[in-house]
Amino acid sequence: MKAIYAGERGSFAELAAREYFGRKRRIEQVELFEDVFNDVTKCPGVQGIVPIENTRAGSVHRNYDMLLESGCSIVGELYLKIGQFLIANKTATPRNVRRVLSHPQALAQCRTYLRAHPEMKPVETVNTAAAVKTIKEDRSLDSAAIASMQAAIDFDMKILARNIQDDKNNMTRFLILSRRPNRSMAKGIPVKSSIVFSMRNIPGALFRSLAVFSLRDIDLYKIESRPMFGQGFQYLFYLDFEGSATAEKQRHALNHLQEMTSFYRFLGSYPVGRQVAPVYGRR
Amino acid sequence: MKAIYAGERGSFAELAAREYFGRKRRIEQVELFEDVFNDVTKCPGVQGIVPIENTRAGSVHRNYDMLLESGCSIVGELYLKIGQFLIANKTATPRNVRRVLSHPQALAQCRTYLRAHPEMKPVETVNTAAAVKTIKEDRSLDSAAIASMQAAIDFDMKILARNIQDDKNNMTRFLILSRRPNRSMAKGIPVKSSIVFSMRNIPGALFRSLAVFSLRDIDLYKIESRPMFGQGFQYLFYLDFEGSATAEKQRHALNHLQEMTSFYRFLGSYPVGRQVAPVYGRR
Repeated sequence: MKAIYAGERGSFAELAAREYFGRKRRIEQVELFEDVFNDVTKCPGVQGIVPIENTRAGSVHRNYDMLLESGCSIVGELYLKIGQFLIANKTATPRNVRRVLSHPQALAQCRTYLRAHPEMKPVETVNTAAAVKTIKEDRSLDSAAIASMQAAIDFDMKILARNIQDDKNNMTRFLILSRRPNRSMAKGIPVKSSIVFSMRNIPGALFRSLAVFSLRDIDLYKIESRPMFGQGFQYLFYLDFEGSATAEKQRHALNHLQEMTSFYRFLGSYPVGRQVAPVYGRR
Repeated sequence: MKAIYAGERGSFAELAAREYFGRKRRIEQVELFEDVFNDVTKCPGVQGIVPIENTRAGSVHRNYDMLLESGCSIVGELYLKIGQFLIANKTATPRNVRRVLSHPQALAQCRTYLRAHPEMKPVETVNTAAAVKTIKEDRSLDSAAIASMQAAIDFDMKILARNIQDDKNNMTRFLILSRRPNRSMAKGIPVKSSIVFSMRNIPGALFRSLAVFSLRDIDLYKIESRPMFGQGFQYLFYLDFEGSATAEKQRHALNHLQEMTSFYRFLGSYPVGRQVAPVYGRR
């Protein structure tokens, strides 16, 4: 029983995998998000974890597309609190830092901090671990990296500043993927379901599609639109709603919806995810 | 009277600016999207043009955020057909190409072509012009670049393959920005309007917000949700709808909507954009 994530060691994806799977599965790293989807589709025993949306950066569009292309099912979710740390070599001091290395998205999340420190020049790297590795190998005293606290622990570095991201409430939502949908879930826990569909060309199509839920008092969690491949600006809608797809009113709503869709796929029903802070530590 | 775009020369942003403004405005280049928003906000005479969504890659989220932060108005739009070209030095031949340089997004748009040519290793560059410039300066015969045809003309290079992007119907939508909204528009032309809002915490909020348009037979073009800064997963909605905000039924709909919103801003009414293919040529 294996669980896979894409990303370097010490990344938020790895922290999310450890948090969600704990010791229940052997956790392995793959290179790309694409590899996660491919391996999950091919191997019945394997589950995968991928980021799908961040409170600041928005949705990870490519992962929405691959969710559809791969045919994977969603079997769970997790909300991970994201904190960015300024990391340097042990003898470095904050006042000497002239260059800050990190992935463009991490640099973007710390815009306010970097603006307040105009002497620190941002430098882009392929990922956050590469940033930490570079300053460690260079033994640089005038450079720092932005990364998770786990990277500071893994590379045995010093933390110059904590939680320097603009949004102190920054969270990333991760999806747990499997080859087949959940068959049964514990009773009494809050459940949500995800679908993807496109509407036939009828007036007020989007409004009508939401009406099938609202008229049955089914709450919507999220709607995301994506342009359909090769169709110009026609949209696919990804919708998350309250409850299991096998419950009575949800079943009726989904039947009603399919009277109006030109394309429809069920992505999964799963327990509503917990909001957790990462647990850092030595391996 | 000046118009500004962000991006290298020969980029699709420059082609869009030339197409939209023609000889009516002096077209100037700035470095970042942020500079476009800043300059438009500061200078009454300046208009800007920025990409807001692509049929394949989806919305440019950062530009949605800056639209709100800057306080700019939308005064026009343009749909530009996007074609990617494989470009090399004059004596290069397709069969010798081992490396293909380009911006990650251009490489992603040509995935099928690159998969069909596994001997061509993709190499990421900061932008497409940098890719062309590098192979020209290196006089490399085993490398090619992916860029617009304009880049091939500007750098006087050879085209090895045309329209190699996966989606032959690939288009990018550009917005035209100004400090103040349009005051008047020619009569009889199709018009659309854009707003941004968030809903008070009421059941079926999104459904109710769309109802104010559907109940008045006002067509919706697009809805985009963005997480609200510092609010966890609460969403701002960007909505494009048919007609001018000053027309009678649209005015009623917008008043109705504001009974339910916790935040509301009007972004502009403007003529529905044309779909155009870029016009390439020597400068």
